[in-house]
Amino acid sequence: MSLLENLNWRYATKKYDPTKKVSQEDVDKIVEAARLAPTSSGLQQFRVIVVSNQELKEQMVPIAWEQQIMADASHVLVFAAWDRYTEERIDTIYNRTTDERGLPRGRFGSYTDKLKAAYLPQTAEENFVHTARQSYIGFALAIAQAAELKVDCTPVEGFTSEELDELLGLKEKGLKSVTLLPIGYRDNENDWLAPMKKVRNAKEDFVLEY
Amino acid sequence: MSLLENLNWRYATKKYDPTKKVSQEDVDKIVEAARLAPTSSGLQQFRVIVVSNQELKEQMVPIAWEQQIMADASHVLVFAAWDRYTEERIDTIYNRTTDERGLPRGRFGSYTDKLKAAYLPQTAEENFVHTARQSYIGFALAIAQAAELKVDCTPVEGFTSEELDELLGLKEKGLKSVTLLPIGYRDNENDWLAPMKKVRNAKEDFVLEY
Repeated sequence: MSLLENLNWRYATKKYDPTKKVSQEDVDKIVEAARLAPTSSGLQQFRVIVVSNQELKEQMVPIAWEQQIMADASHVLVFAAWDRYTEERIDTIYNRTTDERGLPRGRFGSYTDKLKAAYLPQTAEENFVHTARQSYIGFALAIAQAAELKVDCTPVEGFTSEELDELLGLKEKGLKSVTLLPIGYRDNENDWLAPMKKVRNAKEDFVLEY
Repeated sequence: MSLLENLNWRYATKKYDPTKKVSQEDVDKIVEAARLAPTSSGLQQFRVIVVSNQELKEQMVPIAWEQQIMADASHVLVFAAWDRYTEERIDTIYNRTTDERGLPRGRFGSYTDKLKAAYLPQTAEENFVHTARQSYIGFALAIAQAAELKVDCTPVEGFTSEELDELLGLKEKGLKSVTLLPIGYRDNENDWLAPMKKVRNAKEDFVLEY
Protein backbone atom coordinates (compact mmCIF):
# COMPACT_ATOMS: atom_id res chain seq x y z
CA MET A 1 0.00 0.00 0.00
CA SER A 2 1.10 3.55 -0.71
CA LEU A 3 1.93 6.10 1.97
CA LEU A 4 -1.32 7.94 1.25
CA GLU A 5 -3.33 4.75 1.67
CA ASN A 6 -1.49 4.03 4.91
CA LEU A 7 -2.11 7.56 6.22
CA ASN A 8 -5.80 7.19 5.44
CA TRP A 9 -5.85 3.82 7.22
CA ARG A 10 -4.29 5.05 10.45
CA TYR A 11 -6.05 6.88 13.27
CA ALA A 12 -5.15 7.85 16.82
CA THR A 13 -6.06 4.61 18.56
CA LYS A 14 -7.93 5.18 21.82
CA LYS A 15 -8.27 1.59 23.04
CA TYR A 16 -5.74 -1.21 22.63
CA ASP A 17 -6.14 -4.97 22.98
CA PRO A 18 -3.64 -5.64 25.79
CA THR A 19 -3.24 -9.29 24.77
CA LYS A 20 -1.71 -8.48 21.36
CA LYS A 21 1.99 -7.69 21.14
CA VAL A 22 3.92 -6.08 18.31
CA SER A 23 6.71 -8.33 17.02
CA GLN A 24 10.32 -7.32 17.65
CA GLU A 25 10.80 -7.21 13.88
CA ASP A 26 8.07 -4.61 13.51
CA VAL A 27 9.29 -2.57 16.50
CA ASP A 28 12.73 -2.54 14.90
CA LYS A 29 11.34 -1.22 11.61
CA ILE A 30 9.41 1.56 13.35
CA VAL A 31 12.54 2.62 15.25
CA GLU A 32 14.58 2.40 12.04
CA ALA A 33 12.26 4.84 10.25
CA ALA A 34 12.88 7.35 13.05
CA ARG A 35 16.62 6.69 12.94
CA LEU A 36 16.68 7.53 9.23
CA ALA A 37 14.89 10.85 9.78
CA PRO A 38 16.57 13.92 8.34
CA THR A 39 17.43 16.48 11.02
CA SER A 40 18.74 20.02 11.06
CA SER A 41 22.39 20.00 9.95
CA GLY A 42 22.29 16.21 10.26
CA LEU A 43 22.77 16.46 14.03
CA GLN A 44 20.18 13.79 14.95
CA GLN A 45 19.18 15.72 18.05
CA PHE A 46 16.82 13.08 19.42
CA ARG A 47 16.65 9.50 20.68
CA VAL A 48 13.92 6.87 20.97
CA ILE A 49 13.27 4.97 24.18
CA VAL A 50 11.31 1.75 23.66
CA VAL A 51 9.34 0.78 26.77
CA SER A 52 7.97 -2.76 26.82
CA ASN A 53 8.21 -3.44 30.57
CA GLN A 54 4.62 -3.72 31.83
CA GLU A 55 5.34 -2.23 35.24
CA LEU A 56 6.95 0.84 33.66
CA LYS A 57 4.07 1.21 31.22
CA GLU A 58 1.62 1.16 34.14
CA GLN A 59 3.65 3.84 35.90
CA MET A 60 3.28 5.92 32.76
CA VAL A 61 -0.54 6.02 33.08
CA PRO A 62 -0.66 8.74 35.78
CA ILE A 63 2.23 10.57 34.12
CA ALA A 64 0.19 10.61 30.90
CA TRP A 65 -2.83 12.14 32.59
CA GLU A 66 -4.57 8.80 33.24
CA GLN A 67 -4.46 7.60 29.64
CA GLN A 68 -4.90 3.84 29.97
CA ILE A 69 -3.41 3.32 26.50
CA MET A 70 0.05 3.54 28.11
CA ALA A 71 -0.57 0.29 29.97
CA ASP A 72 -2.65 -1.46 27.30
CA ALA A 73 -0.46 -0.75 24.28
CA SER A 74 2.16 -3.33 23.40
CA HIS A 75 5.07 -0.88 23.60
CA VAL A 76 5.41 2.84 24.26
CA LEU A 77 8.01 4.71 22.23
CA VAL A 78 9.34 7.86 23.89
CA PHE A 79 10.83 10.54 21.62
CA ALA A 80 13.35 12.56 23.62
CA ALA A 81 15.49 15.44 22.37
CA TRP A 82 18.86 16.80 23.47
CA ASP A 83 18.39 19.12 26.44
CA ARG A 84 20.90 21.46 24.81
CA TYR A 85 23.64 21.70 22.22
CA THR A 86 27.24 21.14 23.29
CA GLU A 87 30.51 21.32 21.41
CA GLU A 88 31.10 17.64 22.13
CA ARG A 89 27.74 16.56 20.73
CA ILE A 90 28.28 18.48 17.50
CA ASP A 91 31.83 17.19 17.10
CA THR A 92 30.83 13.58 17.82
CA ILE A 93 28.30 13.60 14.99
CA TYR A 94 30.61 15.26 12.48
CA ASN A 95 33.56 13.05 13.39
CA ARG A 96 31.41 10.02 12.70
CA THR A 97 30.26 11.53 9.42
CA THR A 98 33.77 12.20 8.15
CA ASP A 99 35.03 8.82 9.42
CA GLU A 100 32.25 6.90 7.67
CA ARG A 101 32.72 8.86 4.45
CA GLY A 102 36.47 8.38 4.45
CA LEU A 103 37.10 12.12 4.77
CA PRO A 104 39.59 13.83 7.08
CA ARG A 105 38.18 14.90 10.45
CA GLY A 106 37.55 18.62 10.43
CA ARG A 107 36.50 18.56 6.76
CA PHE A 108 33.29 20.33 7.83
CA GLY A 109 35.08 22.50 10.39
CA SER A 110 33.96 25.86 9.05
CA TYR A 111 30.37 24.58 9.04
CA THR A 112 30.48 23.17 12.57
CA ASP A 113 32.10 26.41 13.76
CA LYS A 114 29.03 28.23 12.42
CA LEU A 115 26.70 25.81 14.19
CA LYS A 116 28.56 26.26 17.47
CA ALA A 117 28.52 30.05 17.09
CA ALA A 118 24.76 29.92 16.52
CA TYR A 119 23.72 27.44 19.22
CA LEU A 120 26.20 27.52 22.08
CA PRO A 121 25.49 31.14 23.15
CA GLN A 122 21.75 30.37 23.37
CA THR A 123 20.06 29.29 26.58
CA ALA A 124 19.26 25.60 27.06
CA GLU A 125 15.58 26.52 26.64
CA GLU A 126 16.24 28.13 23.26
CA ASN A 127 18.30 25.11 22.20
CA PHE A 128 15.51 22.77 23.23
CA VAL A 129 12.91 24.60 21.13
CA HIS A 130 15.04 23.61 18.16
CA THR A 131 16.06 20.08 19.17
CA ALA A 132 12.46 19.21 20.09
CA ARG A 133 11.28 20.23 16.60
CA GLN A 134 13.67 17.70 15.06
CA SER A 135 12.20 14.91 17.14
CA TYR A 136 8.84 15.48 15.42
CA ILE A 137 10.37 14.43 12.09
CA GLY A 138 11.32 11.05 13.54
CA PHE A 139 7.98 10.87 15.32
CA ALA A 140 6.09 11.37 12.04
CA LEU A 141 8.17 8.80 10.16
CA ALA A 142 7.60 6.26 12.96
CA ILE A 143 3.85 6.88 12.65
CA ALA A 144 4.08 6.32 8.88
CA GLN A 145 6.12 3.14 9.36
CA ALA A 146 3.66 1.74 11.91
CA ALA A 147 0.82 2.37 9.44
CA GLU A 148 2.74 0.56 6.68
CA LEU A 149 3.00 -2.46 8.98
CA LYS A 150 -0.67 -2.16 10.01
CA VAL A 151 0.42 -1.57 13.57
CA ASP A 152 -1.83 0.88 15.39
CA CYS A 153 -0.40 3.83 17.25
CA THR A 154 -1.41 6.97 19.12
CA PRO A 155 0.58 10.19 18.86
CA VAL A 156 0.61 11.67 22.39
CA GLU A 157 1.73 15.04 23.71
CA GLY A 158 -0.43 14.89 26.85
CA PHE A 159 1.96 13.92 29.63
CA THR A 160 4.17 15.57 32.22
CA SER A 161 7.61 15.36 30.70
CA GLU A 162 9.55 16.15 33.89
CA GLU A 163 7.94 13.16 35.62
CA LEU A 164 8.64 10.84 32.71
CA ASP A 165 12.25 12.02 32.47
CA GLU A 166 12.60 11.19 36.17
CA LEU A 167 11.05 7.72 35.73
CA LEU A 168 13.28 6.84 32.78
CA GLY A 169 16.44 8.57 34.00
CA LEU A 170 16.59 10.78 30.92
CA LYS A 171 18.05 13.87 32.60
CA GLU A 172 21.29 12.01 33.31
CA LYS A 173 21.48 11.20 29.59
CA GLY A 174 21.02 14.86 28.59
CA LEU A 175 17.58 14.18 27.13
CA LYS A 176 14.09 15.59 27.63
CA SER A 177 10.97 13.71 26.52
CA VAL A 178 8.86 15.44 23.87
CA THR A 179 6.24 13.00 22.57
CA LEU A 180 5.02 9.46 23.18
CA LEU A 181 3.92 6.85 20.68
CA PRO A 182 2.08 3.86 22.14
CA ILE A 183 1.95 1.10 19.51
CA GLY A 184 -0.10 -2.09 19.44
CA TYR A 185 -3.37 -3.39 18.06
CA ARG A 186 -6.72 -1.68 18.39
CA ASP A 187 -9.58 -3.08 20.44
CA ASN A 188 -11.99 -2.38 17.61
CA GLU A 189 -15.20 -3.00 19.54
CA ASN A 190 -14.30 -0.71 22.41
CA ASP A 191 -12.59 2.15 20.61
CA TRP A 192 -15.07 5.01 20.08
CA LEU A 193 -12.83 6.67 17.48
CA ALA A 194 -12.27 3.57 15.30
CA PRO A 195 -15.52 3.89 13.28
CA MET A 196 -15.40 7.69 12.99
CA LYS A 197 -14.64 9.47 9.74
CA LYS A 198 -11.19 11.04 9.47
CA VAL A 199 -11.64 14.80 9.19
CA ARG A 200 -9.11 17.22 7.78
CA ASN A 201 -9.15 20.70 6.34
CA ALA A 202 -10.37 20.67 2.78
CA LYS A 203 -7.51 20.87 0.31
CA GLU A 204 -8.52 24.39 -0.74
CA ASP A 205 -8.29 25.55 2.89
CA PHE A 206 -4.96 23.79 3.42
CA VAL A 207 -2.93 24.84 0.38
CA LEU A 208 -2.02 28.24 -1.01
CA GLU A 209 -0.56 28.33 -4.50
CA TYR A 210 1.79 31.03 -5.79
CA MET B 1 9.32 0.23 -2.40
CA SER B 2 8.90 0.27 1.36
CA LEU B 3 9.16 3.40 3.49
CA LEU B 4 12.56 2.26 4.79
CA GLU B 5 13.85 1.77 1.26
CA ASN B 6 12.53 5.21 0.31
CA LEU B 7 14.16 6.83 3.36
CA ASN B 8 17.46 5.20 2.46
CA TRP B 9 17.09 6.43 -1.13
CA ARG B 10 16.47 10.08 -0.26
CA TYR B 11 19.09 12.65 0.68
CA ALA B 12 19.11 16.43 1.12
CA THR B 13 19.60 17.44 -2.50
CA LYS B 14 22.11 20.26 -2.89
CA LYS B 15 21.87 20.84 -6.66
CA TYR B 16 18.76 20.63 -8.82
CA ASP B 17 18.37 20.33 -12.57
CA PRO B 18 16.36 23.50 -13.28
CA THR B 19 14.98 22.06 -16.54
CA LYS B 20 13.06 19.24 -14.84
CA LYS B 21 9.64 19.95 -13.36
CA VAL B 22 7.63 17.88 -10.91
CA SER B 23 4.22 16.95 -12.33
CA GLN B 24 1.10 18.48 -10.79
CA GLU B 25 -0.03 14.96 -9.89
CA ASP B 26 3.09 14.38 -7.82
CA VAL B 27 2.92 17.83 -6.19
CA ASP B 28 -0.66 17.05 -5.21
CA LYS B 29 0.35 13.75 -3.60
CA ILE B 30 3.13 15.41 -1.60
CA VAL B 31 0.73 18.07 -0.33
CA GLU B 32 -1.87 15.40 0.41
CA ALA B 33 0.55 13.50 2.68
CA ALA B 34 1.02 16.70 4.69
CA ARG B 35 -2.72 17.33 4.79
CA LEU B 36 -3.29 13.88 6.29
CA ALA B 37 -0.73 14.48 9.06
CA PRO B 38 -1.93 13.89 12.60
CA THR B 39 -1.69 17.04 14.73
CA SER B 40 -2.15 17.87 18.40
CA SER B 41 -5.86 17.61 19.26
CA GLY B 42 -6.54 17.35 15.54
CA LEU B 43 -6.23 21.12 15.16
CA GLN B 44 -4.17 21.07 11.92
CA GLN B 45 -2.22 24.12 13.03
CA PHE B 46 -0.29 24.52 9.79
CA ARG B 47 -0.69 25.19 6.08
CA VAL B 48 1.40 24.50 2.97
CA ILE B 49 2.22 27.19 0.42
CA VAL B 50 3.27 25.80 -2.97
CA VAL B 51 5.53 28.21 -4.84
CA SER B 52 6.08 27.45 -8.53
CA ASN B 53 6.41 31.04 -9.82
CA GLN B 54 10.00 31.42 -11.01
CA GLU B 55 10.28 35.08 -10.03
CA LEU B 56 9.13 34.36 -6.50
CA LYS B 57 11.52 31.41 -6.23
CA GLU B 58 14.37 33.67 -7.27
CA GLN B 59 13.36 36.21 -4.64
CA MET B 60 13.60 33.39 -2.11
CA VAL B 61 17.33 32.87 -2.79
CA PRO B 62 18.55 35.84 -0.69
CA ILE B 63 15.87 35.14 1.94
CA ALA B 64 17.24 31.58 2.19
CA TRP B 65 20.79 32.78 2.78
CA GLU B 66 21.83 32.54 -0.88
CA GLN B 67 20.79 28.92 -1.37
CA GLN B 68 20.44 28.61 -5.14
CA ILE B 69 18.25 25.51 -4.72
CA MET B 70 15.29 27.85 -4.15
CA ALA B 71 15.51 29.05 -7.76
CA ASP B 72 16.61 25.77 -9.34
CA ALA B 73 14.11 23.43 -7.68
CA SER B 74 10.87 22.81 -9.53
CA HIS B 75 8.65 23.98 -6.65
CA VAL B 76 9.27 25.22 -3.13
CA LEU B 77 6.83 24.11 -0.45
CA VAL B 78 6.56 26.45 2.53
CA PHE B 79 5.30 24.97 5.81
CA ALA B 80 3.72 27.74 7.87
CA ALA B 81 2.07 27.42 11.26
CA TRP B 82 -0.66 29.43 13.00
CA ASP B 83 0.87 32.50 14.60
CA ARG B 84 -1.34 31.83 17.63
CA TYR B 85 -4.41 29.97 18.86
CA THR B 86 -7.75 31.72 18.80
CA GLU B 87 -11.20 30.65 19.93
CA GLU B 88 -12.46 30.96 16.36
CA ARG B 89 -9.73 28.71 14.94
CA ILE B 90 -10.42 25.98 17.49
CA ASP B 91 -14.19 26.20 16.99
CA THR B 92 -13.90 26.15 13.19
CA ILE B 93 -11.98 22.86 13.25
CA TYR B 94 -14.29 21.19 15.75
CA ASN B 95 -17.44 22.40 13.99
CA ARG B 96 -16.18 20.84 10.78
CA THR B 97 -15.37 17.63 12.64
CA THR B 98 -18.81 17.28 14.18
CA ASP B 99 -20.53 18.30 10.93
CA GLU B 100 -18.62 15.73 8.88
CA ARG B 101 -19.24 12.99 11.44
CA GLY B 102 -22.94 13.76 11.70
CA LEU B 103 -22.64 14.74 15.36
CA PRO B 104 -24.21 17.76 17.05
CA ARG B 105 -22.00 20.85 17.19
CA GLY B 106 -20.56 21.21 20.67
CA ARG B 107 -20.28 17.42 21.10
CA PHE B 108 -16.61 17.99 22.02
CA GLY B 109 -17.36 21.20 23.96
CA SER B 110 -15.80 20.11 27.24
CA TYR B 111 -12.64 19.14 25.35
CA THR B 112 -12.40 22.36 23.34
CA ASP B 113 -13.02 24.33 26.56
CA LYS B 114 -9.92 22.63 27.99
CA LEU B 115 -7.90 23.48 24.88
CA LYS B 116 -8.98 27.12 25.07
CA ALA B 117 -8.16 27.29 28.78
CA ALA B 118 -4.70 25.88 28.05
CA TYR B 119 -3.74 27.89 24.96
CA LEU B 120 -5.58 31.23 24.97
CA PRO B 121 -3.89 32.62 28.13
CA GLN B 122 -0.45 31.89 26.65
CA THR B 123 1.54 34.46 24.71
CA ALA B 124 1.58 34.24 20.91
CA GLU B 125 5.23 33.12 21.18
CA GLU B 126 4.32 30.23 23.48
CA ASN B 127 1.48 29.24 21.16
CA PHE B 128 3.83 29.28 18.19
CA VAL B 129 6.33 26.95 19.86
CA HIS B 130 3.49 24.42 19.85
CA THR B 131 1.94 25.11 16.46
CA ALA B 132 5.37 25.08 14.77
CA ARG B 133 6.07 21.60 16.17
CA GLN B 134 2.94 20.27 14.47
CA SER B 135 4.11 21.58 11.11
CA TYR B 136 7.13 19.25 11.35
CA ILE B 137 4.82 16.23 11.24
CA GLY B 138 3.44 17.35 7.89
CA PHE B 139 6.92 18.30 6.76
CA ALA B 140 8.23 14.79 7.49
CA LEU B 141 5.32 13.09 5.74
CA ALA B 142 5.82 15.30 2.67
CA ILE B 143 9.49 14.25 2.63
CA ALA B 144 8.46 10.59 2.82
CA GLN B 145 5.89 11.05 0.05
CA ALA B 146 8.41 12.77 -2.22
CA ALA B 147 10.79 9.84 -1.69
CA GLU B 148 8.06 7.34 -2.58
CA LEU B 149 7.56 9.21 -5.87
CA LYS B 150 11.33 9.44 -6.45
CA VAL B 151 11.08 13.18 -6.32
CA ASP B 152 14.13 14.78 -4.73
CA CYS B 153 13.75 17.32 -1.96
CA THR B 154 15.76 19.35 0.54
CA PRO B 155 14.51 20.00 4.07
CA VAL B 156 15.48 23.62 4.85
CA GLU B 157 15.39 25.63 8.07
CA GLY B 158 18.02 28.14 6.94
CA PHE B 159 16.04 31.22 5.95
CA THR B 160 14.78 34.45 7.46
CA SER B 161 11.15 33.71 8.19
CA GLU B 162 10.05 37.33 8.72
CA GLU B 163 11.25 38.22 5.23
CA LEU B 164 9.53 35.24 3.65
CA ASP B 165 6.30 35.98 5.51
CA GLU B 166 6.47 39.49 4.09
CA LEU B 167 7.12 38.24 0.54
CA LEU B 168 4.23 35.75 0.65
CA GLY B 169 1.81 37.87 2.68
CA LEU B 170 1.58 35.25 5.40
CA LYS B 171 1.17 37.62 8.35
CA GLU B 172 -2.21 38.76 7.03
CA LYS B 173 -3.25 35.12 6.98
CA GLY B 174 -2.21 34.55 10.60
CA LEU B 175 0.66 32.29 9.57
CA LYS B 176 4.42 32.21 10.18
CA SER B 177 6.78 30.19 7.99
CA VAL B 178 8.69 27.40 9.75
CA THR B 179 10.42 25.22 7.14
CA LEU B 180 10.92 25.04 3.39
CA LEU B 181 10.92 22.01 1.13
CA PRO B 182 12.29 22.59 -2.37
CA ILE B 183 11.32 19.64 -4.58
CA GLY B 184 12.58 18.66 -8.00
CA TYR B 185 15.14 16.42 -9.63
CA ARG B 186 18.79 16.24 -8.68
CA ASP B 187 21.62 17.38 -10.94
CA ASN B 188 23.54 14.24 -10.19
CA GLU B 189 26.85 15.29 -11.72
CA ASN B 190 27.02 18.58 -9.88
CA ASP B 191 25.68 17.62 -6.46
CA TRP B 192 28.57 16.97 -4.08
CA LEU B 193 26.32 15.19 -1.58
CA ALA B 194 24.69 12.78 -4.05
CA PRO B 195 27.49 10.16 -4.00
CA MET B 196 28.18 10.44 -0.25
CA LYS B 197 27.22 7.73 2.22
CA LYS B 198 24.20 8.43 4.42
CA VAL B 199 25.41 8.61 8.02
CA ARG B 200 23.26 8.16 11.09
CA ASN B 201 23.82 7.26 14.71
CA ALA B 202 24.32 3.54 15.12
CA LYS B 203 21.16 1.81 16.29
CA GLU B 204 22.72 1.08 19.69
CA ASP B 205 23.41 4.80 20.18
CA PHE B 206 19.95 5.79 19.01
CA VAL B 207 17.68 3.47 20.96
CA LEU B 208 17.29 2.81 24.67
CA GLU B 209 15.25 -0.22 25.65
CA TYR B 210 13.37 -0.57 28.94
